[in-house]
Amino acid sequence: MGSPQKPPLAHLFKGTFVHASRSSPMTVLHGHLLGVGDDGRIVFLEQADQQEQLAKKWGFKASDIRELSNHEFFMPGMVDTHIHAPQYAFAGSRIDLPLLEWLNTYTFPTEVKYKDNDFAEEVYTRVVRRTLKNGTTTACYFATIHTAASLLLAEIIDKFGQRAFVGKVCMDLNEFVPEYKESTDESVKETERFVRELLEKKYQKVQPIVTPRFGPSCTEELLSRLGDFAKAHDIHVQTVMAHGCHLSDEELKLFSLRGAAIAHCPSSNFMLCSGILNIQNVLKHNVKIGLGTDVAGGYSASMLDAIRKSMSASTVFQINKVNETGLTLKEAFRLATLGGSQVLGLDAVIGNFEVGKEFDALLINPKASDSPFDLFAADTFEDIIQKFLYLGDDRNINEVYVAGKQVVPFSSSV
Amino acid sequence: MGSPQKPPLAHLFKGTFVHASRSSPMTVLHGHLLGVGDDGRIVFLEQADQQEQLAKKWGFKASDIRELSNHEFFMPGMVDTHIHAPQYAFAGSRIDLPLLEWLNTYTFPTEVKYKDNDFAEEVYTRVVRRTLKNGTTTACYFATIHTAASLLLAEIIDKFGQRAFVGKVCMDLNEFVPEYKESTDESVKETERFVRELLEKKYQKVQPIVTPRFGPSCTEELLSRLGDFAKAHDIHVQTVMAHGCHLSDEELKLFSLRGAAIAHCPSSNFMLCSGILNIQNVLKHNVKIGLGTDVAGGYSASMLDAIRKSMSASTVFQINKVNETGLTLKEAFRLATLGGSQVLGLDAVIGNFEVGKEFDALLINPKASDSPFDLFAADTFEDIIQKFLYLGDDRNINEVYVAGKQVVPFSSSV
Repeated sequence: MGSPQKPPLAHLFKGTFVHASRSSPMTVLHGHLLGVGDDGRIVFLEQADQQEQLAKKWGFKASDIRELSNHEFFMPGMVDTHIHAPQYAFAGSRIDLPLLEWLNTYTFPTEVKYKDNDFAEEVYTRVVRRTLKNGTTTACYFATIHTAASLLLAEIIDKFGQRAFVGKVCMDLNEFVPEYKESTDESVKETERFVRELLEKKYQKVQPIVTPRFGPSCTEELLSRLGDFAKAHDIHVQTVMAHGCHLSDEELKLFSLRGAAIAHCPSSNFMLCSGILNIQNVLKHNVKIGLGTDVAGGYSASMLDAIRKSMSASTVFQINKVNETGLTLKEAFRLATLGGSQVLGLDAVIGNFEVGKEFDALLINPKASDSPFDLFAADTFEDIIQKFLYLGDDRNINEVYVAGKQVVPFSSSV
Repeated sequence: MGSPQKPPLAHLFKGTFVHASRSSPMTVLHGHLLGVGDDGRIVFLEQADQQEQLAKKWGFKASDIRELSNHEFFMPGMVDTHIHAPQYAFAGSRIDLPLLEWLNTYTFPTEVKYKDNDFAEEVYTRVVRRTLKNGTTTACYFATIHTAASLLLAEIIDKFGQRAFVGKVCMDLNEFVPEYKESTDESVKETERFVRELLEKKYQKVQPIVTPRFGPSCTEELLSRLGDFAKAHDIHVQTVMAHGCHLSDEELKLFSLRGAAIAHCPSSNFMLCSGILNIQNVLKHNVKIGLGTDVAGGYSASMLDAIRKSMSASTVFQINKVNETGLTLKEAFRLATLGGSQVLGLDAVIGNFEVGKEFDALLINPKASDSPFDLFAADTFEDIIQKFLYLGDDRNINEVYVAGKQVVPFSSSV
């Protein structure tokens, strides 16, 4: 008998790979070979001069390699740590009020409508398409209080092949829009049903998450019972704490101790006048942090917008002389990829191109037709990456992969 | 003899027109008819029920009318009050340093290269294309110290049909990059030559502007001699005063008294850590103010980015409890159109759709193919306008007109 048969490779790419690690916010690997196994995991990422040895070990031919163009590169898929799928219906509009008024005037009256599954299907299909097309390979969604529509969101996500957490929203307090709340019992019971039915679907990449909306919407009893349920079933919990803007140093220490994480959503913080997060202080306290769009408090469903806004937010603390240094673009890149995976407890699975992780990746083409930015002869590769991060959009994201499966361009079945 | 022959109409549009006036930051006129004369001026803007009388007066037939789709609208072309054309070469990259270091490290070494006309032609062609495509119908450009390349910029602008001021940059001080400066005499003499040669071209919409770079780059003597020259020839002057971020109330009063105007460039203010402009305070002092991209301190050449960033900048003063209210999106829209025209002294010519002004306009299609945002049945027209202003891009700007001439899509001759 010969040597044991190696599993076949699903993908084999040669070119430039840009990703973050704990020790470096951005590493640019030129002239590398990356192999993806049939199970969607990265099996090697090596310098191209290792091609012969790799070919022998993994049984591929030179003609199996897909070679990227000089200016193209792969980066990890982006992780949106906080997005309200139902609010996508009005994303980009109706953001002229502070948080609580905004909730009562625009948000709750819209979220009520998700008792209608047809409405839910339309908006949820569009939000998943839009986020995937913009490079969000993993999203942590708030849905609404409606179990049926929340399950439908999970089904749509699975169909498109996005990786996600989905939370049926829990709220047993609502003074202003009383038709949009549940009883405490109902909220707990429906959460249990939502989790059970979602797990029964056995979607590979869509998981339930327990979702008490936020303090003002939940009784102590509800929070406590949901906590017990999440603990008993080892399920993640998400909630809204003004996105961490107002946490004291003491509270940040507690976050670090408990492993709680912050979804930094600079766009909605600006738009709803919530506050500005001192991200340097969060990083100093060793609290897990990623970026989120917070649609529709944040108007954009694109994580590139979150990267750009995080730079502006950080700068405010330099301008006001609170901090000496601000976030760098490379650090913002890390937050949007590896940082997000840490926030969601998925950093053993995704977040960068380490061997063994699943291949969630974006093929970036800075010279795409109709690209929103221009390149010139003097541009270094680092300039090109910066131009994409500051000025690029979905026109530059030619292909999107989740767990090794190409999900953008969309297949004809979705 | 019959009544005197009316001049023929160049364009006749029926649909929705969105613009600003002194009394209202945004007015939405549905079901209106707008006529543009052969000289590019708006000859009427009336409710469509006046069609019969208008047809009689202006001698047009119903079939001459171009009717917009329900969701489409016209808005005034945007006015970029401050953009450095040569810096477009690295727009979106190299913005990781504060202003003075950024100038010495990236900017001056790039600007030196415009002694080469071929390099200038490439970058200047791209920046004019890019800004026009993104809806900048009027731009106030800084070029470099090179007279030949500055004249070339004016020629390219004229060819594309953009409206602009172009300034040959003056600087007789440069400690760090000494090869990028002129003698005082040379700077004055070359400015005179630049202005003379540009005026001799008789471009209809491109004017020269005297451009002392900023205090640290100019001797008192140079400033004084350029001032005398500008006064003697009644030519506009532009310079950089940290974009007004650091003006005291006393200084703002002086601005108001002298008719000096501020180009608010929120993107570069954030990126280069210059400061944040308290726009509410500027407006209170009755100082003329518009928006600028300040490429490449600002990374984006799109005025839509300037609108969005001006909202974030204004919010900082609410969050810090300096101001009770912030800029509204409608006010930002006014700044980007009418406000900019006031800054440049062009508000009798452009800025909105008043009869008698030249037709500088953008045809916005919120349902463009590959549009970056989604519309839903519940969206009001105001929601649609907001979605465009917050999320739209050049894909939604189907046509651009300057003085009644369609300049985008680009003609095959440019």
